Amino acid sequence: MEVREILKQVKTGEMSVKEAEQYLRREPFEEMGYAKLDVHRKLRSGFAEVVFCSGKADEHLLHIYQKLYEEEGEVFGTRASKEQYELIRTVLPQIEYDAISRILKLEKKGKKRVGKIAVCTAGTADIPVAEEAAQTAEYFGSNVERIYDVGVSGIHRLMSRLDIIQSANCVVAVAGMEGALASVLGGLVDKPVIAVPTSVGYGANLNGLSALLTMINSCANGIAVVNIDNGYGAGYIATQINRLGVKR
Amino acid sequence: MEVREILKQVKTGEMSVKEAEQYLRREPFEEMGYAKLDVHRKLRSGFAEVVFCSGKADEHLLHIYQKLYEEEGEVFGTRASKEQYELIRTVLPQIEYDAISRILKLEKKGKKRVGKIAVCTAGTADIPVAEEAAQTAEYFGSNVERIYDVGVSGIHRLMSRLDIIQSANCVVAVAGMEGALASVLGGLVDKPVIAVPTSVGYGANLNGLSALLTMINSCANGIAVVNIDNGYGAGYIATQINRLGVKR
Amino acid sequence: MEVREILKQVKTGEMSVKEAEQYLRREPFEEMGYAKLDVHRKLRSGFAEVVFCSGKADEHLLHIYQKLYEEEGEVFGTRASKEQYELIRTVLPQIEYDAISRILKLEKKGKKRVGKIAVCTAGTADIPVAEEAAQTAEYFGSNVERIYDVGVSGIHRLMSRLDIIQSANCVVAVAGMEGALASVLGGLVDKPVIAVPTSVGYGANLNGLSALLTMINSCANGIAVVNIDNGYGAGYIATQINRLGVKR
Amino acid sequence: MEVREILKQVKTGEMSVKEAEQYLRREPFEEMGYAKLDVHRKLRSGFAEVVFCSGKADEHLLHIYQKLYEEEGEVFGTRASKEQYELIRTVLPQIEYDAISRILKLEKKGKKRVGKIAVCTAGTADIPVAEEAAQTAEYFGSNVERIYDVGVSGIHRLMSRLDIIQSANCVVAVAGMEGALASVLGGLVDKPVIAVPTSVGYGANLNGLSALLTMINSCANGIAVVNIDNGYGAGYIATQINRLGVKR
Amino acid sequence: MEVREILKQVKTGEMSVKEAEQYLRREPFEEMGYAKLDVHRKLRSGFAEVVFCSGKADEHLLHIYQKLYEEEGEVFGTRASKEQYELIRTVLPQIEYDAISRILKLEKKGKKRVGKIAVCTAGTADIPVAEEAAQTAEYFGSNVERIYDVGVSGIHRLMSRLDIIQSANCVVAVAGMEGALASVLGGLVDKPVIAVPTSVGYGANLNGLSALLTMINSCANGIAVVNIDNGYGAGYIATQINRLGVKR
Amino acid sequence: MEVREILKQVKTGEMSVKEAEQYLRREPFEEMGYAKLDVHRKLRSGFAEVVFCSGKADEHLLHIYQKLYEEEGEVFGTRASKEQYELIRTVLPQIEYDAISRILKLEKKGKKRVGKIAVCTAGTADIPVAEEAAQTAEYFGSNVERIYDVGVSGIHRLMSRLDIIQSANCVVAVAGMEGALASVLGGLVDKPVIAVPTSVGYGANLNGLSALLTMINSCANGIAVVNIDNGYGAGYIATQINRLGVKR
Amino acid sequence: MEVREILKQVKTGEMSVKEAEQYLRREPFEEMGYAKLDVHRKLRSGFAEVVFCSGKADEHLLHIYQKLYEEEGEVFGTRASKEQYELIRTVLPQIEYDAISRILKLEKKGKKRVGKIAVCTAGTADIPVAEEAAQTAEYFGSNVERIYDVGVSGIHRLMSRLDIIQSANCVVAVAGMEGALASVLGGLVDKPVIAVPTSVGYGANLNGLSALLTMINSCANGIAVVNIDNGYGAGYIATQINRLGVKR
Amino acid sequence: MEVREILKQVKTGEMSVKEAEQYLRREPFEEMGYAKLDVHRKLRSGFAEVVFCSGKADEHLLHIYQKLYEEEGEVFGTRASKEQYELIRTVLPQIEYDAISRILKLEKKGKKRVGKIAVCTAGTADIPVAEEAAQTAEYFGSNVERIYDVGVSGIHRLMSRLDIIQSANCVVAVAGMEGALASVLGGLVDKPVIAVPTSVGYGANLNGLSALLTMINSCANGIAVVNIDNGYGAGYIATQINRLGVKR
Repeated sequence: MEVREILKQVKTGEMSVKEAEQYLRREPFEEMGYAKLDVHRKLRSGFAEVVFCSGKADEHLLHIYQKLYEEEGEVFGTRASKEQYELIRTVLPQIEYDAISRILKLEKKGKKRVGKIAVCTAGTADIPVAEEAAQTAEYFGSNVERIYDVGVSGIHRLMSRLDIIQSANCVVAVAGMEGALASVLGGLVDKPVIAVPTSVGYGANLNGLSALLTMINSCANGIAVVNIDNGYGAGYIATQINRLGVKR
Repeated sequence: MEVREILKQVKTGEMSVKEAEQYLRREPFEEMGYAKLDVHRKLRSGFAEVVFCSGKADEHLLHIYQKLYEEEGEVFGTRASKEQYELIRTVLPQIEYDAISRILKLEKKGKKRVGKIAVCTAGTADIPVAEEAAQTAEYFGSNVERIYDVGVSGIHRLMSRLDIIQSANCVVAVAGMEGALASVLGGLVDKPVIAVPTSVGYGANLNGLSALLTMINSCANGIAVVNIDNGYGAGYIATQINRLGVKR
Repeated sequence: MEVREILKQVKTGEMSVKEAEQYLRREPFEEMGYAKLDVHRKLRSGFAEVVFCSGKADEHLLHIYQKLYEEEGEVFGTRASKEQYELIRTVLPQIEYDAISRILKLEKKGKKRVGKIAVCTAGTADIPVAEEAAQTAEYFGSNVERIYDVGVSGIHRLMSRLDIIQSANCVVAVAGMEGALASVLGGLVDKPVIAVPTSVGYGANLNGLSALLTMINSCANGIAVVNIDNGYGAGYIATQINRLGVKR
Repeated sequence: MEVREILKQVKTGEMSVKEAEQYLRREPFEEMGYAKLDVHRKLRSGFAEVVFCSGKADEHLLHIYQKLYEEEGEVFGTRASKEQYELIRTVLPQIEYDAISRILKLEKKGKKRVGKIAVCTAGTADIPVAEEAAQTAEYFGSNVERIYDVGVSGIHRLMSRLDIIQSANCVVAVAGMEGALASVLGGLVDKPVIAVPTSVGYGANLNGLSALLTMINSCANGIAVVNIDNGYGAGYIATQINRLGVKR
Repeated sequence: MEVREILKQVKTGEMSVKEAEQYLRREPFEEMGYAKLDVHRKLRSGFAEVVFCSGKADEHLLHIYQKLYEEEGEVFGTRASKEQYELIRTVLPQIEYDAISRILKLEKKGKKRVGKIAVCTAGTADIPVAEEAAQTAEYFGSNVERIYDVGVSGIHRLMSRLDIIQSANCVVAVAGMEGALASVLGGLVDKPVIAVPTSVGYGANLNGLSALLTMINSCANGIAVVNIDNGYGAGYIATQINRLGVKR
Repeated sequence: MEVREILKQVKTGEMSVKEAEQYLRREPFEEMGYAKLDVHRKLRSGFAEVVFCSGKADEHLLHIYQKLYEEEGEVFGTRASKEQYELIRTVLPQIEYDAISRILKLEKKGKKRVGKIAVCTAGTADIPVAEEAAQTAEYFGSNVERIYDVGVSGIHRLMSRLDIIQSANCVVAVAGMEGALASVLGGLVDKPVIAVPTSVGYGANLNGLSALLTMINSCANGIAVVNIDNGYGAGYIATQINRLGVKR
Repeated sequence: MEVREILKQVKTGEMSVKEAEQYLRREPFEEMGYAKLDVHRKLRSGFAEVVFCSGKADEHLLHIYQKLYEEEGEVFGTRASKEQYELIRTVLPQIEYDAISRILKLEKKGKKRVGKIAVCTAGTADIPVAEEAAQTAEYFGSNVERIYDVGVSGIHRLMSRLDIIQSANCVVAVAGMEGALASVLGGLVDKPVIAVPTSVGYGANLNGLSALLTMINSCANGIAVVNIDNGYGAGYIATQINRLGVKR
Repeated sequence: MEVREILKQVKTGEMSVKEAEQYLRREPFEEMGYAKLDVHRKLRSGFAEVVFCSGKADEHLLHIYQKLYEEEGEVFGTRASKEQYELIRTVLPQIEYDAISRILKLEKKGKKRVGKIAVCTAGTADIPVAEEAAQTAEYFGSNVERIYDVGVSGIHRLMSRLDIIQSANCVVAVAGMEGALASVLGGLVDKPVIAVPTSVGYGANLNGLSALLTMINSCANGIAVVNIDNGYGAGYIATQINRLGVKR
C-alpha cells in the first residue's frame, strides 16, 4: 500500500491512527516505493544506470540492454567483449563498440556537455583505462580533455600541456608501473586530482597494487584514489566534481 | 636574474638575443622566482602552507611557526604533541591546541566560511581523524557539519541524519575496522564521497589496511580514497570540491 | 577384530585380561571400527558425505557418485563442471546439474525441510556462491529464503526485506568487492550471521581477500566468516545452527 | 514530531495528505525513535551494551560505566587496563577486574544460565582470549565449559575431554601459532565451531594472521572464524547459537 | 577405571560385554593414562619438557621451574628475561642465565654428548638465535660445533671451515637479512641443513619474512626451514637427526 | 694446469715460487677440477642428478636425458608433461611416465632400498605432491610407506596408522588447505617431520602460502618445512635423514 | 612562437617587456622544443629509443619499427612474440628475432663496443632475462661477458670464473628462486652489482618477489636492484656505469 | 702455513709434490690468508671497514672502534646512538657524532675527494637517510652535492637545480611516502640513479615498502634500488660508480 493511500484512509477514518502508525513503522521503505524513486533520482541527476558487462550471461545482458534502452533512450556498458558487441548488435543494430576502452554504447544525439575534466595518462598502455574514464565522463555530460603519455620519465611533455590541465575542474591521473604521475599533477594544479592506478607493468607491480600504494601515499595535496583499472569510477566522481564547478 | 631584467637588457641592447635565449633555456625556473610565486598562489587560492608537526625538531618547528605567523598572520599544524604545544606557546602565547585532533593553530579572527562539507565517522574512536579533516576544512574556509558515530552496525542512526549529509557539496567518510561506512554513504548521496580509512581496530585490521581495501573496492559510485588516518588530506580535497560548489 | 569380539573372548576365557589390555591399548581406533561409525554418525545426523568435484579424475568421480548413491540413495557434489555432468549422466541418468551453482546432485524425493535460513547477496554476481550455500542447506534439510542483490550501495532494497531476514534462525551474507553487507546485516538481526566473502570484483579486491578482511574486521556483533567463495561451508554451518533452532 | 501526531493531524485535517506524505518520506527514522527501541531490543534479547574500554578517555569511561549501571543494574567491559579498574572503582566500588581476561564488570547476582558452550584453547598462552570469550558468554547467560591447553601437538589431551566438548551447543576454538585446533575440533563434533585465532606466537605468525588463514582454510566442516584475539565476538555469536539450542 | 579392571569385571561377569564395549568406546584415552606415558616417553627419549619463558606469569614460571627440577633433576628454559633469572634464582640459586641466548637453565653435570651438529651464522647479529639452537642441542645431548660469521658476503670465511661443517650429521644455518647462507651450505654438504631465518636486518627484511622466503625457495637440495628466530626448534630437530646418525 | 703440474714445475725449478704462488691464488678452483669431483661425489653418495623438466626446451631435455642415461645407467625427472614423455620415448623407449606424480624415469633394476620413510597426506588431492616425494625417496634408495588421506578433520584415520608412522626414520607430511597435519604428526612421533605445504585449496589458501605459514608456525617440535608443492625437496632431505638412521 | 623570435620582438620593440615576460612564464617548455632536444640527447648519448613490444597493437608496432628504423638506421625491441616477428618481417625483412631473449632487432653493422659488463645467472632458467640484459647492453655499445649457471648451490662453478667477473666495470646478477647469487657476487667483486630478480621458481617464490626481497636485503655492499625479470633495465644502467668506466 | 712456505718446501724437497697437493686442496683459503688480504684489498680500494653500530654490545663496539682506529687511522660507524657516542668518546675523545645522520666517526684530515655524486631528497624528513648516504660517500672519497627537499609535489624546485644534478657521475634519490622522486630524476639525467626508499610516511606507506615498490616499478630508465633507509648502501655503490667516472 502506498503512503498516500494510508494517509487518505486515516483522513477518511477507514484506518485508525494506531493501525496506520504500526504499518508505517513496520515497512518504512517498501510502500514508499524507494526502488522507483531511485530510478527517478538517477534520471534527474544525470547518472543513468551503467552496465558492467564482464561476466554477465548472454540472455541477461541482452535483456538489460534492451530494457535500459527502452526506458532511457540510451544505454552505456563497460568491460564489454567483442563477442558481447556482436550479441547486442543483433537487437540494437546502432550500438557502438570501442575496442580500446571496451565500452559498448548507444548514446542519444546532441547531448550537451559542460565544464572540463582533464584525463591524463603516464604511458600509452594506460590509455584503455583512461578512455573508460573519459567516455564515462562524456556520457554523463562532461567535456573531457585527453592528455596522454605525459608520465614522469619525460616530465617536460607534461609541463608543455599544463595550461590545459590547470583549466579543468577536475583532473584524472591514470598511471601504472610506479604511478608517480598523480603526485606530480597534485603539485601542479589546485583542483582535485582523482588518481587511477592501472595494472600496467610487470614483476613487482603486483597487478597494480604498487601504483595504488604510490598514489595513496602521495606527498602532494588534493589527491584521492579509486580502484585499480577503475576508469568508470574515476569518470563518475570526476563528473560529480565537474558539475559542482559548473553549477548555475 | 629576473626574467624582467633579462628582457629589459635585451630591449636596451645590454644583452644580445642569443645570450638571453641561452639563459632562458638553461634555467627556466630559478630566475622566474617560482618558489615565491608558489607562496603567492597559495595565499591567493586560500591554501596556506600547513605544518606536519610530527617528528620535526624543536628549533625547526619554532622557526616555521614564527615565520608562517609573520607572513600570513595565522598558522596551522597537524599531528602536534602536547610537548610541541608547550614549546610554541613560549613564543606564540595565543596558540591553541586541540588534544583530540592534535591540531596546533593560531587562526585569524572573522574568517568567512562557505558551502558545506559533511564529515561522518563510523565510531567514536574515529573522531580524532575526523576532527583533523573537519578543522582542516574549516581553516581553509569551508563550513563543516559533523555527523559522528553513524557506522553501519547501527544503520538507522545514519539514516536519521541523511538530510544534512545530502545537502553538503562533499562528504568525508571516516571509518576504521571494516570501513563499510563509505559504501553506504556512496549509495545514499549524489555528491563526491572522500573516504578516510583509519587504523582503528585490531588483529586483521592490519593497522588500517583492511579498511583501505574495503573503501577502494567499494561497490558504490562516487567514492575516492585517501591514506590511512589522513584527515588532513581529506579536509584539503573536500575543500577543493566544496569551493567548486560555491563558486560565484 | 571388533571390540565386542575381544570382550566376548575375555568373558569366555579365550583371551587373557593381559592380552586384551595390550590389544586395546595398541590400536584404539582400528578395531573399534571408527571409520564405519563415522559413516553411521553422518547418516544419523543428516550430514551425508558431499563430493568436491573440482579436480577429481573421471574414473574416481564416477566411482564415488555410484558408491554414494548406492549407500545413501542420493548424492550431492559441488564445483562440478559441465563435462563432469555429462560423465555422471552416463551412469546416473536422473542426475541434475545447476550451471550457476555448479551443483551436481540426485536428491531423494519428499525430504522434509525445517526452520529457516536467509541467504543474502550484495550483488547479482555473488549469486553462484549464494546458490551453493542455499542448495547445500536445502540438501541438508533446511528451509532457505533467498534475498539477492541487496548490497549496501542501495541500502533501501535490503531494508524492505528485513522482516523476512529477521525471522530466520541464521543469516548467510554473501558479498564480494568491499563485502560490507555482513556488517549491515549484523547490525539489523539478532541471529548469527555467517559471512561468505566472494572473489567478485577486480584490482585491489585481491581475489576476495579484501572482502574477507572487511568481514573479519566487522564492527557489528554476531558475525563469523568462512573461506572466500565457500558457499558449501556456509550452508553447512548455517544448517547446524538452524537445526539447533528447530530442535524439539 | 511523532508519527502518531502527524496521523492525528491528518485525521483532524490540520495537515493535508500531501504534507504528511512529504514529511514521512523525508525522515522515516528519526521520529520513530529507533535509537530507543534499539536499547529496548537489547535488554529484551539479553545482549546489553558492552564497553570496549581500550583507548577510551577517562571521563568518557567513567560516564559510560555509571550510565550503563544506572540503566541496566550491571555493566560489562572488555580490554580494560588496571588503571581503568582503579578509576572505575572510585565510583563503583563493587566493580570486579580480572587481570587475565582484562574484563571489568559488575554483574547482577543470581542470573540464570542456560545451555552449554565449550571454550577450548590450544595452549596456556591463549587463555586470556578464551576467558574473554567465556566470560562474555556467561555474562550473556550461557553455561560455559573451559577445556584449556588441548592443542594438536598433544592430541590425546583433547581426546580425553571429547565427551564434554561434544555435549555443547557450540564450540569456541581459541588458538594461536598454527591454529590447527579448530580443524581437529571441526572433525570431532557435529555442532558449530567458532574459531578465534590469537596473536600468540612469533616470527611468521604475523601477529595472528597465520592462525587466521589456517582457520579460514580449514578442511573440516562447520567452522567459521572471527577476528584475531576477538574473544568477545566469539562469546557473543556462541551465545546466539547456544540460545537457539535451548529455545523452549 | 583402568582397562585392566574393566576386562577383569568382564571376565568375572561383573560387567556385561555390552557395558564394557560402551565404556571403552567412550573414553579410549583417559584411562590409558596417556598423559603420564607421555612424560615417560620424553624422559626415555631424552627430550625433556622445555620452558618457553617469555610472557609467563611470575608465579607460574616459579612453579614450573621447581616442578621440572624436582621431577627431572634439571630444567631448561628459552626466551627468559633478566628479571625472570633474578626471580628463579631466589628458589634455585644454582640456576644459570646466558644473556645472549636468553637461556635460563640448571643442567645435570656429566651428561654425555654424541654425534655432531654444526651451527653456522651469517653474521654476528645472528648469534643469539644460533646460541639458542646450539645450547638446546647440547641440552638434548648433541655435540655442537659453532661456526659463526661466515655469511655469503665473505664466502672465503665459510670455505675455510668447510671440513668441520661437512663432518656433522646435521647443519643448522642461521641467517637474517637475505638469508643466503642456507643455500650456499646446501650446495656444499651432503647432510640435512636446517635453516633458521632471523629477524636481523631492517626495512624490507619484513622482520625476518624475507629471509624465510629466501630459505624456502632455496635452489639447493637438502634444506628445510623452521620459524623466524626459532633457534629452539632447529636445535630440537637437529638433535633428532643427529641421534639417527649415531644410533648403535 | 693441474696443481700437481705446478708443484712439479716448482720442484724442478721450471716455475719460480713467486709465479706458482700467484697462479694458485688466482684460480684456486678451476685446476682442482671441482666440477668433475662434484659429479663423482654425487654418484658416490647416491644422489644422482635429477632433471626438473618443466619449462625445458625439447632439444635440451632430450640431450640431458640421453647424457644422464649414458653416464649413470638411469635417469629421473620431475614435473614432466605428457608431451615430454612422448618426446623422450622416441629415444629411450623403456622410459616410464607416472601421470599423477608427473615423474618421468628410467630406473635401474634391482636397486636396494634401506630404512623407512612415512609419506602422509591430509587429503587425496595432495597425493601428486606426496608421490613426487615418495618416488624421489625410492629412487634415492629409501623404503617408503604411503599413508594417504589421514587429515585432521578425520583424526581417527591417522590414529589407526600410527604404528607404521612411528616406525619410520623420517615422516613427510603433505597437506594443503590449512596444513594442520604436520602439527598433529609432530605431536605423535619422535622422528623428524618434513612438512610439505601444497597449493591444494582455494580462496584464502593463497596458493599454498596459508599452509606454509601454518607449518612454519607449528606448536609441535621436530618439524621443518620445504617449499609449496616441493615433493622432490622433501623426498631428498628425508632420504638424507633416513640414511643417517640406517648407517652401519 | 620561438624564444628567439620573442627576444627579437622585444629588442625591436614589437613586444613589450611585460608581454614577453608573461609569455615566457606561461609556456616555458613548449617553445623550447624539449621533445626534439630529447631525441637529440638520446642519439648523442647512445641511448636510442627502445620498443617494449608486449601488448602493442599490430599497426602501432609496425609504425614504430618503421619510423625508428628510418630515423636511426636501426631498431631494437624487447618482449616481442614470434607473431610480432612475423609481422615486422613483412616490412623489414632483415629484422632478427631471438626466441630466448624475445628481442626483435635490426642493428647497424660495425658498431664499436667498449668496456666490459659481466652478466651472470644462477641457473639456466634465468638465461632469457640475462640475454635481455646482455643484448640490451651490447646494443647500447658495451662488451658483455656471459657467465651462466653459477648459482650458489654450486658455488665452485662461480669461483672458477671469478677472474673474468672481477675484470668488468659492472656485474649484472640474474637469479630467481632464492636469489642469493647477488650477495655472493657482492662479496667477491669491488664494482657495482646490478641485481635482477627473476620469476623463475614456484610456490613461495611469489612470482619473483622472494628473490627481489632477498636481493634488497643483501648483507653485501655494492648491490642495487631492478624490477623482477627487468633484463632491459639492468642492461641499461649497467651500460651507464660501464661508460663511466671507459670515459676518455 | 703460507702458500709461499709450502712452495719453498716443495722446491727444497722438504715437502713432496703429493703432500703439497693435498694441503692445497684441503684448505685453499685459510693458509692463503684471505682474511688479511681482504683487509688489504679494502685499504687499497678505499673501502675501509665500516661499523653498523645499532645493536652492538658496548664492549664489542669499544673494541671495534679502537682496533679499526689503530689499524686504519680513522673509523666510521652508522646507526649510532647518542649513548654509543658518549661511550666511544671515553676512549677516542676526538670522535665526532652527527645526531641527524647518526654517524659516529673519526676521519683523517686532508683526505682528497674526487668526482661528484648528487644526493637528492623529496622532503626534509628524508634528510637523515640522505646524510648517511652523503657522508658515507664523502668518507669513501667522493665529492657530494646535497639537493634536499625537491620532491615531486613541488617539481619546479627540482628543475631549478637540474644543472648541478646533471653534472654528477651518479645521483642518489632519497624519498619516502610515494617515492616518485626517483622516476622524475631518472627521466632528467643520463647517469645512474640509485634510489633509496625511506620509511618516512604513515598508514599505507607500510614502513617504506610502498616507496620501495614505486622505485622498483619505475617507468624511467637507469634506476636501481637499495633497501629502505639504507643510506649507507647507496653511498657505497654511488662511490663505486663515481670512481669509475673519475678513473685516470
